[in-house]
Amino acid sequence: MSHHPFSDIPSETVASLGEHRLIGRLRDWLGAVVPPCPAGMGDDCAAAPFQPAGAMLVTVDSVVYGRHFDASVSPRRAGRKLANRNLSDIAAMGGIPDRAVVALMLPHRTRTDWLREFYLGLAEAAAAAGLAIVGGDISETTADLSASLTLIGSAARPLSRKGGRAGDLLAVTGALGGSILGRHADFTPRLAEGRWLAGRGEVLSLMDVTDGLAKDLPELLPENTAAVLDLAKLPLHADAHTLAARDGRPAEHHALADGEDYELVMALAAGTDPEAFLTAWRGEFPEVPLTLMGRIENAPAGTAGRLVNRADGLPVGAAGYAHLG
Amino acid sequence: MSHHPFSDIPSETVASLGEHRLIGRLRDWLGAVVPPCPAGMGDDCAAAPFQPAGAMLVTVDSVVYGRHFDASVSPRRAGRKLANRNLSDIAAMGGIPDRAVVALMLPHRTRTDWLREFYLGLAEAAAAAGLAIVGGDISETTADLSASLTLIGSAARPLSRKGGRAGDLLAVTGALGGSILGRHADFTPRLAEGRWLAGRGEVLSLMDVTDGLAKDLPELLPENTAAVLDLAKLPLHADAHTLAARDGRPAEHHALADGEDYELVMALAAGTDPEAFLTAWRGEFPEVPLTLMGRIENAPAGTAGRLVNRADGLPVGAAGYAHLG
Repeated sequence: MSHHPFSDIPSETVASLGEHRLIGRLRDWLGAVVPPCPAGMGDDCAAAPFQPAGAMLVTVDSVVYGRHFDASVSPRRAGRKLANRNLSDIAAMGGIPDRAVVALMLPHRTRTDWLREFYLGLAEAAAAAGLAIVGGDISETTADLSASLTLIGSAARPLSRKGGRAGDLLAVTGALGGSILGRHADFTPRLAEGRWLAGRGEVLSLMDVTDGLAKDLPELLPENTAAVLDLAKLPLHADAHTLAARDGRPAEHHALADGEDYELVMALAAGTDPEAFLTAWRGEFPEVPLTLMGRIENAPAGTAGRLVNRADGLPVGAAGYAHLG
Repeated sequence: MSHHPFSDIPSETVASLGEHRLIGRLRDWLGAVVPPCPAGMGDDCAAAPFQPAGAMLVTVDSVVYGRHFDASVSPRRAGRKLANRNLSDIAAMGGIPDRAVVALMLPHRTRTDWLREFYLGLAEAAAAAGLAIVGGDISETTADLSASLTLIGSAARPLSRKGGRAGDLLAVTGALGGSILGRHADFTPRLAEGRWLAGRGEVLSLMDVTDGLAKDLPELLPENTAAVLDLAKLPLHADAHTLAARDGRPAEHHALADGEDYELVMALAAGTDPEAFLTAWRGEFPEVPLTLMGRIENAPAGTAGRLVNRADGLPVGAAGYAHLG
């Protein structure tokens, strides 16, 4: 199904509305997630009290048509994805989302009904996360359709990527691989999970898996350490198996390399009782797997900053995937 | 002088750097305005304490090459303008800027040296305003070069556009008109002035002049009122006179219609002693004119929400400019 965003029939496009009416429509489409002025749109700035417990979090992320999504993705899902990618960054700090602004870049040929669906998707994801959309900006471009969302949140105990140490356990939520089959544009950011994890002193560092575990996990590693993984324990998503059956690559390859999983990966302090932690997790999130998949260890020669297969001591990487079959 | 941002020589472009090195360069170019991680770039979110006195302010604004500036504007000035336009929105709330994030959209043909200058300009304006750049995002586009800046600030007493009443005095900082001769891309946002004004109880509403006084001033008007102006008192910039000499339109026309003045316009409570207020202003800002140019009044028939010339009682507008000669 095609969800092409452009039209050569002027009446179908944003050009026929003009900026003033277009802004009114955007506000209508967003509906209840826009607070009344001055907290929301309509003045020079959005202005409302903000009292973070701990740190304020700020993150910005963009989607570009033809890059991050295309006409195979419905605008509703594209709008949801823009919000959810950003919300996943808040989850990855153990934070709570609060408010956001959107910068929209539109060719004048953009279809009004396409944009409506995109904004309805944005509003759905914002409402689900308790996020207010407090402002925005519209600019005209010649060719590229894009949107950037800046999200502000707070965290009582912000969990950075750094903070892990040699000896820590490595764990990951959910299951990995094959998100391209659809999950990449249709996932629920792990906000509740991130918040719960930030409340547990055992969790020393946290991030979300966006580029694939093989590329992201090294971000959690202190200097001169490696991530020593029990690859057999990697939580493989059914989509990873589906893709493996199609392309002949091992499902583990997909779990390590595909990316856009939007799961949370973390370091748990060395002394953590794994069973007690998992029991507490299951009591809170019975539907969401949490998998202990390895440890941060002092790096064997030549493996600093890398993933290592515990079974054979070899680095896991582009070349290493072949071992996995 | 041409400041063309694109090149067909790959080694001159951002494509030759790759994303990872490009991010490192951006950080280097921004220099001291980027705080160290986790307050700055490098994690899922920027995280640092934020304790606004009063309200948090959020605003987003974008610049698109070919729309908001072109090859006649140096990238250094374009970068400064992106920051200063946003800072002017903070000034217009009587606020203090705090931190910002940048979403960059780049064709792969973008020249690295152009981008460096753009970021140096951004850093200059940020440093001048005490603004930290705490994060960003880079996306590739096919044709359009743009940047969006989201700015977060605070205001002990946020001054909205609404708040004025019939009887209030109308005042404006600086001088108006002809900004296209250069000031539009090279101005100092009225941050100190906005902050001072917010500390004065006489000031009931405030905004910055971006689209021209004739278009912006109605935003300050409560229902069923008009802005009755002593047009002879309008503070005319030398650039307005220069343009008037070129195109034969009255300088007043340029002051009312040109836009991008980035001056502050305000409503002062009806009972304000004008001389005492102006004396206090001059003591604080001896270099910056403040002009009392009229009043908010109950609207004569057919003039609600409009500007009216006190001399003849006629609306000032597209048709009205002819009267001004």
